[in-house]
Amino acid sequence: MLMRLLLLSNSTAPGRRYLEHATDALAETLDGVRRLVFVPFALADHDAYTAKAAEALAAFGVEVTGAHQGDPIALLDAAQAVFVGGGNTFRLLRELYARELLAPIRDRVARGTVYIGSSAGTNVACPSIRTTNDMPIVQPPSFDASGLVPFQINPHYLDPVEGDAHMGETREERILQFLEENDVPVLGMREGTWLRREDSSLTLGGVEAGARLFRRDEKPVEIESGADLSALLETVGRFR
Amino acid sequence: MLMRLLLLSNSTAPGRRYLEHATDALAETLDGVRRLVFVPFALADHDAYTAKAAEALAAFGVEVTGAHQGDPIALLDAAQAVFVGGGNTFRLLRELYARELLAPIRDRVARGTVYIGSSAGTNVACPSIRTTNDMPIVQPPSFDASGLVPFQINPHYLDPVEGDAHMGETREERILQFLEENDVPVLGMREGTWLRREDSSLTLGGVEAGARLFRRDEKPVEIESGADLSALLETVGRFR
Repeated sequence: MLMRLLLLSNSTAPGRRYLEHATDALAETLDGVRRLVFVPFALADHDAYTAKAAEALAAFGVEVTGAHQGDPIALLDAAQAVFVGGGNTFRLLRELYARELLAPIRDRVARGTVYIGSSAGTNVACPSIRTTNDMPIVQPPSFDASGLVPFQINPHYLDPVEGDAHMGETREERILQFLEENDVPVLGMREGTWLRREDSSLTLGGVEAGARLFRRDEKPVEIESGADLSALLETVGRFR
Repeated sequence: MLMRLLLLSNSTAPGRRYLEHATDALAETLDGVRRLVFVPFALADHDAYTAKAAEALAAFGVEVTGAHQGDPIALLDAAQAVFVGGGNTFRLLRELYARELLAPIRDRVARGTVYIGSSAGTNVACPSIRTTNDMPIVQPPSFDASGLVPFQINPHYLDPVEGDAHMGETREERILQFLEENDVPVLGMREGTWLRREDSSLTLGGVEAGARLFRRDEKPVEIESGADLSALLETVGRFR
């Protein structure tokens, strides 16, 4: 299996252009890619979102077509990469099911098509969307997603704010609730971080703050940027 | 139809005991109630959660039984009130479906059983859980909920934080995404607020900060504590 994935926690860093913070990782991931299919279904305006992605990726010499701008299967077959953009994860997954794109994307990525995801696009690369932060604005037929990695990711991971008077759960509390129900590791990826998978190798990249790894009945551990996380690819998860 | 509802945005205010901030509203709502069924399914430990509710409600002269501590239908029939506690909305709704309690609760509330909800318990009083803030840690068979009010509520409503560098969506952005997909008003209830329904009368109570009402294609409007919201009970929503 030849797999190349780039899973971004977020697409835009404060004060920077769309995708600018991840320029180096994108350049390496897109090496050899001339055509890319952009999946804009996490936002409402597919044309505008695709145009934004096309503009950002032109700098890498990549030609971008939206998955809604033709027969998506033919587009995938003519492309060397697929990029699933962020937005609302429920809307994205619902549309991937409605357009029957989940399995075709998974199959092509397993056969070497590069996969890039950011935020919601990273959520749907997990076995399930059960660790998204998004509001369930529409109902997908299932929470099962493409499983390009065998563990769960929580993008935009936020540390608890000292002295916060808000009584809603912290992100850590939410993830611990997930672990009460499911026995699957969750990587809380802080903003500005990404994961790169090359076959059986998995590495955390991006800002120093890194990520926080949660496992059932274990103390969460801090993961530094640059860490080798390949062992996570051996995960055998158990969802309730 | 004789309906009495108390829908709390949150169960605990900073520095106060469980339910303490809503003592007056609870006392009025629980007038005439001797027995209450507590629905603890939004948290993992049903016994502990029920004990906590029983302790808080003892001050109102109310005897509390957990919905898991006997035949729930018989318990409902012997009680004058049902209180659905907060926690994770997806876990709560999944359990209400699994135990076939959604319709029995709705029927009894329509015939005069008092309904109290807080946070997740307020979410499931709406037509759907599509405006919860919670993580989708388990998959309920449907997002449809009990519809004790015909519009949507977002509990723990949070205003955008000025200068926040976090790139995840603000609460308002999430609700506007909901309105892109669904044509149903959403009441963003700030912490410390509650709604009281008495038949066809609906009033916002609690802290002065009040609530923010979102409708498709309209500017959001601020709702002050004490406002009469009865017109919202005429809502005919349209979910995608």
